[in-house]
Amino acid sequence: MTQGVSRMDVVVAAGRIEDVAVRTPLLRSDVLDALTGGEVWLKPECLQRTGSFKFRGAYNRLAAISPEDRSGGVVAYSSGNHAQGVAFAAKLLNMPATIVMPSDAPGLKVARTRSHGAEVVFYDRLTEDRGAIATAIAKKRGAVIVPPFDDPFVVAGQGTAGLEIARDLEAMDKTADFAVVCCGGGGLASGIALGSGLPVVPVEPQGYDDVARSLVARKILAVENPGPTICDALQTLFCSPLTFGILSERALPGIWVSEAEVMAAVAFAFRELKLVVEPGGAVALAAVLAGKVDVRGKTVAVLLSGGNVDTEMFTRCLRESA
Amino acid sequence: MTQGVSRMDVVVAAGRIEDVAVRTPLLRSDVLDALTGGEVWLKPECLQRTGSFKFRGAYNRLAAISPEDRSGGVVAYSSGNHAQGVAFAAKLLNMPATIVMPSDAPGLKVARTRSHGAEVVFYDRLTEDRGAIATAIAKKRGAVIVPPFDDPFVVAGQGTAGLEIARDLEAMDKTADFAVVCCGGGGLASGIALGSGLPVVPVEPQGYDDVARSLVARKILAVENPGPTICDALQTLFCSPLTFGILSERALPGIWVSEAEVMAAVAFAFRELKLVVEPGGAVALAAVLAGKVDVRGKTVAVLLSGGNVDTEMFTRCLRESA
Repeated sequence: MTQGVSRMDVVVAAGRIEDVAVRTPLLRSDVLDALTGGEVWLKPECLQRTGSFKFRGAYNRLAAISPEDRSGGVVAYSSGNHAQGVAFAAKLLNMPATIVMPSDAPGLKVARTRSHGAEVVFYDRLTEDRGAIATAIAKKRGAVIVPPFDDPFVVAGQGTAGLEIARDLEAMDKTADFAVVCCGGGGLASGIALGSGLPVVPVEPQGYDDVARSLVARKILAVENPGPTICDALQTLFCSPLTFGILSERALPGIWVSEAEVMAAVAFAFRELKLVVEPGGAVALAAVLAGKVDVRGKTVAVLLSGGNVDTEMFTRCLRESA
Repeated sequence: MTQGVSRMDVVVAAGRIEDVAVRTPLLRSDVLDALTGGEVWLKPECLQRTGSFKFRGAYNRLAAISPEDRSGGVVAYSSGNHAQGVAFAAKLLNMPATIVMPSDAPGLKVARTRSHGAEVVFYDRLTEDRGAIATAIAKKRGAVIVPPFDDPFVVAGQGTAGLEIARDLEAMDKTADFAVVCCGGGGLASGIALGSGLPVVPVEPQGYDDVARSLVARKILAVENPGPTICDALQTLFCSPLTFGILSERALPGIWVSEAEVMAAVAFAFRELKLVVEPGGAVALAAVLAGKVDVRGKTVAVLLSGGNVDTEMFTRCLRESA
């Protein structure tokens, strides 16, 4: 039991999502192995339902709400992928869903959230508190709030991707040294640590390396002077006591990657992996490709956490990394 | 035993390639199912080594060459994907490889073929006979010719993708009605028919529907007045007695798709599947999306046969299908 979430919670979550989530494969690339000198196993959560790992945690959280409490529905706040995960999980479970989204969220993510039948309420990322808005809606409607990462069920749900990594490696008689994981609020990173049993390297975009700095400082630090980033999925300002607690015990030092490194990773995934990965979903791959995580002689798992990217941003990544 | 290739040959091929080929998953898309009214299982061979299914047949053919006959190497002719498959299989088996490619083959495919250590010899698609060039090289060097589809080992190798489809569906207690397959010379289509045991719908690009017409005519017909096509992987002028024999017994009527339908399918795969599929690899999906193959109420398997597409062509598909 680590800070309220155990590996057993992940195993229970795996049973809960088994019939609804995609069992994403582990993929390997000859070119990536040759470039890095490691044995790199990629977990493409861009192939997950709703296009990111977020569906795992969302469904696990919603399915754990007792049938008599489901009628009030759920409320979530998210820049997009969590929103889609919650909206779709709610649709599958016949629950109403309201999503509080920043007014600058990518149009694609807003449209998709709505396509799952959820109501979208916008807020201003710089002046308003999304948590407070969500709380007010939840009170009014008797709804359950589904936080993007500060929730044991959500972390356990994300951890199912880690459990799958562990099981797939075991089936191949392989042992990995560590996992490299995209990190915003740490829900995926802490879940992967629990579910896989592997040390995790959390990777954040430049300017948003609060988890890396928090791990060094041994206390939760916030992002300072947040600027724009192409990694819209990873614009979290600080992690939570829950995820920080798990990462404090199980994470290796955190890494940050530049926008150019992220764009190069998106282009690499297009060229070599034939996968569509969004910028925020490509940071872990970026860290490996840029040599910021040394995988020479190692066997590692690398999360590709999502693929919800607009045509414009995607073609920009291909063009600027040509 | 059908025309020299049996399902047992596919099972043997599966054992031969097991440790080297990617066991591609079966994926499903909520959006695709909703759009088509069917239960559509996608087999993403774009995730296969070298970026297309061609590696399966190539490796199966090369691995069947006795060790004492390997020193002369192999010769293949191909517009690109078969070339890469043969070149990479030869590299894995330590055999020299020469690839005869059309001088207008996509630069990406030429570069990748060379990157696997193969020698590339160009020919003019309109004035020269690639088969004759390959035969001359093979004679001079004592090399084995690896045809792109007119070979029992190649067909059996491609069939391993069909065997995987059958096994994955069986593991889910599902039965499919038919498989929709991209078709050039019919190697994949006939292999899938044998390996999956399903009737196959061969799908060709507009202007290259020789297999569809041949099935109607009950004899092999050639492409008439071949024009340009964005489906460079499917520019075959006629199928072979081997593949035609298998398809005559196991294929449903063939379908052709327009360039606009193909580009829409490439864009759909980007947006909804998070997969990079080349035009020639997207024709089966295009037929389903365009309603040319009616899958309402059916359970079907759809092959996405390759993902080796230049940035320019890919972004053109996204742009023109926006």
